Amino acid sequence: MRVAPTGADRPATNLEAVGAGRLEAFSDGVIAVAITLLVLQIAVPTHLHDHSLAHALLTNWSHYAAYVVSFMTIGIIWINHHAMISRLRQVDHSILLLNLFLLMTIAVLPFATDLIATYLREPAGQSIAACIYAASFLVMSVAFGTLNRHILMRREHLLGKRLPLPERRQILRVSVVGTIPYVAAAGLAFVSAYVTVAICAGVAVYYALPAASRRALVE
Amino acid sequence: MRVAPTGADRPATNLEAVGAGRLEAFSDGVIAVAITLLVLQIAVPTHLHDHSLAHALLTNWSHYAAYVVSFMTIGIIWINHHAMISRLRQVDHSILLLNLFLLMTIAVLPFATDLIATYLREPAGQSIAACIYAASFLVMSVAFGTLNRHILMRREHLLGKRLPLPERRQILRVSVVGTIPYVAAAGLAFVSAYVTVAICAGVAVYYALPAASRRALVE
Amino acid sequence: MRVAPTGADRPATNLEAVGAGRLEAFSDGVIAVAITLLVLQIAVPTHLHDHSLAHALLTNWSHYAAYVVSFMTIGIIWINHHAMISRLRQVDHSILLLNLFLLMTIAVLPFATDLIATYLREPAGQSIAACIYAASFLVMSVAFGTLNRHILMRREHLLGKRLPLPERRQILRVSVVGTIPYVAAAGLAFVSAYVTVAICAGVAVYYALPAASRRALVE
Amino acid sequence: MRVAPTGADRPATNLEAVGAGRLEAFSDGVIAVAITLLVLQIAVPTHLHDHSLAHALLTNWSHYAAYVVSFMTIGIIWINHHAMISRLRQVDHSILLLNLFLLMTIAVLPFATDLIATYLREPAGQSIAACIYAASFLVMSVAFGTLNRHILMRREHLLGKRLPLPERRQILRVSVVGTIPYVAAAGLAFVSAYVTVAICAGVAVYYALPAASRRALVE
Repeated sequence: MRVAPTGADRPATNLEAVGAGRLEAFSDGVIAVAITLLVLQIAVPTHLHDHSLAHALLTNWSHYAAYVVSFMTIGIIWINHHAMISRLRQVDHSILLLNLFLLMTIAVLPFATDLIATYLREPAGQSIAACIYAASFLVMSVAFGTLNRHILMRREHLLGKRLPLPERRQILRVSVVGTIPYVAAAGLAFVSAYVTVAICAGVAVYYALPAASRRALVE
Repeated sequence: MRVAPTGADRPATNLEAVGAGRLEAFSDGVIAVAITLLVLQIAVPTHLHDHSLAHALLTNWSHYAAYVVSFMTIGIIWINHHAMISRLRQVDHSILLLNLFLLMTIAVLPFATDLIATYLREPAGQSIAACIYAASFLVMSVAFGTLNRHILMRREHLLGKRLPLPERRQILRVSVVGTIPYVAAAGLAFVSAYVTVAICAGVAVYYALPAASRRALVE
Repeated sequence: MRVAPTGADRPATNLEAVGAGRLEAFSDGVIAVAITLLVLQIAVPTHLHDHSLAHALLTNWSHYAAYVVSFMTIGIIWINHHAMISRLRQVDHSILLLNLFLLMTIAVLPFATDLIATYLREPAGQSIAACIYAASFLVMSVAFGTLNRHILMRREHLLGKRLPLPERRQILRVSVVGTIPYVAAAGLAFVSAYVTVAICAGVAVYYALPAASRRALVE
Repeated sequence: MRVAPTGADRPATNLEAVGAGRLEAFSDGVIAVAITLLVLQIAVPTHLHDHSLAHALLTNWSHYAAYVVSFMTIGIIWINHHAMISRLRQVDHSILLLNLFLLMTIAVLPFATDLIATYLREPAGQSIAACIYAASFLVMSVAFGTLNRHILMRREHLLGKRLPLPERRQILRVSVVGTIPYVAAAGLAFVSAYVTVAICAGVAVYYALPAASRRALVE
């Protein structure tokens, strides 16, 4: 039996049970705010000195680049988050908490984005900023994979529809594979911060591809 | 068969399918945050020097004007976005991604609004700021039209109700017509930034008219 | 027939029709963001000079006062907004636009709140800041009454349940009465800014009273 | 009879009645924005002087610590808020107002978090900042308990399912117990600000434990 995610399934006495619908609504809210706050790191130039506004705006290119990479990455995590939660008919305390941790790793991304945007062009700090940027995505990715594994392997009785073990393993494999490029991106930050940002952008582009093309690349 | 947009239609195993309802909820969230963040570009005067507060507030008139134009424009795109998505009973990966791109063009508007508000009164930078402001609306408008075309022409099997081709073409024509004033506004920025803002305001007023009056004007 | 506000009633081809549910969801989003952004006007003291942090925090009292008054006022407008929209089974273009205008008057309140909080203690600017603060509430209140009148008098065919004319008139009378104190508060700003803020606070307290006590006071 | 929280139960004429669903949606929105705004208190270092970026980032450790403690605390209050509201099938004016007060105590937490993060490392102001931080959580906790008591003891006719008195008392006992550590944390701020933050963190960790472990600790 599928349970409508609108909360119609709310038990009146069980403090621990939350319909998957309200978990989705709250998660959507946090992700929507985080993705929209990204714009605050793009500042309007206030002192032009002897330069034109066009010049001052072009100088800020790293803020636009970081904006696009982070926006697409958070957008894709939102798509994947929906797919993950939609398999559940109900959630328990452990899922709520792991999801809260995942949301925290997403909500912190406006800071990491501001950091890389500010220091990408600065010789001093470039590497550490890039490493933290990639590491933020890595932590988010690991938090996602941990929650996904918990749901599929330890809370399979909460799934809306029983999934055969090979299918669940296949879903998790895709989750795990997604973390590998971020490990590389964080490590390569000390070689070149630009390579780090390029890898993070590449991951976003990869997940933007149609599913068929992606499967062909991974398997 | 119409599918309730509350997610009751969620398939448990298909990573790609998202009920139109959750797409709407997330889009509503991003648009609501973006439209409300617009207020942050209106700063309270902190140094009055020898002037009165009234004088200092009046000096900031461009921030209020830009606020109203952007608020109405985002509000109207929200109305149109609802109309577009409400035709769908389900969404696929391609729709999710084109919608994500559309949301990015909306979420960036608080920056473009701050930019034109800050430079509209400055001889240096006035034209480029106005051009970027109109171009932001243009990109948003093109992103909207692209998604609308994709839904109506390439994903007609996902529509809740089959629409005859002439009707779909008519809907798209309206979308395309909406981009023309922004092209003009961006181009005229180098003649007068005020003309650019006036055109953008005019588009918002036009879409605020009742549908009957609008059709009479366009056709 | 009552229509579920979840959008299950979405017509697939009518560009103008929006289920009351999605209007509520978007309005809730804007109001929730605006009410939460109010906190941004309360700054952490950064330069203590020779004073203690306690002293610096107490000096900021006007920011806390303005926060509480604005938070309660927006909270009450949210409650009233729900009551207004819940009478509708469907909304049309005119309702969408008047609602959008109402949302704009709410979304601008974080600015008005910051303004009065900053200037309430300053001899220069105190009156004009208080006048704008009360005027902001007045405009919001008028926007609310205008939309309410439009719904009850001109769009009665969109109501979920037919209401007898005297009852509709009674609802509107309450709306109109709510604007009077703000007119007084705006006018009295030039006598005393404190009186203005006290009246705005009083309106919030009045609406926080149980309905029975309120009716006893007004009628 | 359970009422769906999507508003399908909206009475058309009663100004006071709001379906529990819309109360939840608005509360979710405010809590989601407040929890996501927490990131704004983590600033990107702008002047490195002679230090490395890594050093500058490490110096900001108190901002990360306060972020994690506040994020987890707001996240847990969201979980508990859901449990509280989900027992209701309908809400009245008094519940709306007490809930609004609770939301105000949550919405102010980004300020309290910024305050403790800024002053935790400063000898001057450390104690008062820590005391206010713990007091903010205490006020939120008392607001929560007050609303919970009101719902369970005075509005039991609005509950979706009748609960026996001992069970309601047990739920309230848990609410009350939750406020005690914050009293201690506020008081101990003048002994050590670090102890205060550690207690607040401890409360968050305690509520993150599975329910069984928690009951074993409390009873």
